[in-house]
Amino acid sequence: MYDLAGRDDRRFSPACWRVRLTLAHKGLDCAARPTRFVEIAAIGDGSHKTVPVIVDGARTIADSWVIVEYVEAAWPDRPSVFGGLAGKSYARFVQGWSETQVAPAALRMIALDLFDHIDPTDRDYFRASREKRLGMKLEEVPGDREAKLPAFRALLEPLRRVVAQQPFLGGDAPIYADYVAAGTFAWARATSPFRLLAADDPVAAWFGRIKALHGGLLGRSVGYD
Amino acid sequence: MYDLAGRDDRRFSPACWRVRLTLAHKGLDCAARPTRFVEIAAIGDGSHKTVPVIVDGARTIADSWVIVEYVEAAWPDRPSVFGGLAGKSYARFVQGWSETQVAPAALRMIALDLFDHIDPTDRDYFRASREKRLGMKLEEVPGDREAKLPAFRALLEPLRRVVAQQPFLGGDAPIYADYVAAGTFAWARATSPFRLLAADDPVAAWFGRIKALHGGLLGRSVGYD
Repeated sequence: MYDLAGRDDRRFSPACWRVRLTLAHKGLDCAARPTRFVEIAAIGDGSHKTVPVIVDGARTIADSWVIVEYVEAAWPDRPSVFGGLAGKSYARFVQGWSETQVAPAALRMIALDLFDHIDPTDRDYFRASREKRLGMKLEEVPGDREAKLPAFRALLEPLRRVVAQQPFLGGDAPIYADYVAAGTFAWARATSPFRLLAADDPVAAWFGRIKALHGGLLGRSVGYD
Repeated sequence: MYDLAGRDDRRFSPACWRVRLTLAHKGLDCAARPTRFVEIAAIGDGSHKTVPVIVDGARTIADSWVIVEYVEAAWPDRPSVFGGLAGKSYARFVQGWSETQVAPAALRMIALDLFDHIDPTDRDYFRASREKRLGMKLEEVPGDREAKLPAFRALLEPLRRVVAQQPFLGGDAPIYADYVAAGTFAWARATSPFRLLAADDPVAAWFGRIKALHGGLLGRSVGYD
């Protein structure tokens, strides 16, 4: 698997974390090869614009959702990661929420930290693409991030309501909806010392449980705790 | 079932719609008795502060979530409304999203319409409780609701992503997550002529499918289409 990496081997891609946690969930071995943004064009036939990309024997598969569908179908005897039809829709809903609401709100607090933690060779690419996404220069993102925290934390209420009552979005065990939601927090953890979550937030306790899964796969990776 | 009703028999409670659609999903007969806010204190032993409240033989049960758990457990041979363990968590997540993000954003556009459509006897209660929730007088809610539409519609992206790909949040058939999300739109439809959804929005097509379910239970009720 080609896995986005920053400086100090920081693995910060939410989509790559979704796939790595899924492969571990299925008990599948995977070499998560560190990849810079500028190296993506050199993968396989050169057609890829994003990672994750996985290579399984003769097959090369891109796009986290497609990869997870492939893995779920190819190893039906291993523990299901979607948790059934409803669970698969649930994951898609949580992904829409994470990508359109949670990640953009977090990016407005951690954009400069993220820039500081990517590989130096990726800085031009990152600056151009993120400034386009933010609609402003990285240095122009308003600086008072403490002031943005209450609205950000309020945004997490759908996740909080579930994990305040049970260990995971999936119930007693994690499903893909958990890995999708966790990807955003893994991205922030890898690149920013800023504390997005209050210590007593049930979301923080849930993320701690995610970090401990699969031999501490996420928790042992380079990041701020 | 005690069901909140406004003037002209408008049924506008999101929580009551969740329960009515669930009872229909299970194929259970139910008399949805119109109830004003000011009549809630007279239900049963007088302990209730909200509806829905259902009476099933000797049992009286309040709170939409508790009612749906009761119905699902009491009629296990009827079609499941949660759609399994993951589906139940999914519904709780969607309820958190609907109540903390979608409904508050919609309320800031339709508050005065809502006030105009409740029963005259409920006006004092409604004004006091909603002004507390809004933090301002109903008439002070900024009037340019057209300007708020783009942000509101962007907020619906998690729902839109799922129902652009399949008929319901549950897949080919509706589950409780659908009824939860639909409750907010049913509330707006009953009380406001303002079009929250663009005609070509996949969310509008999904809500049309919800209105047609169970013999058009929701679609036949009094409201703006």
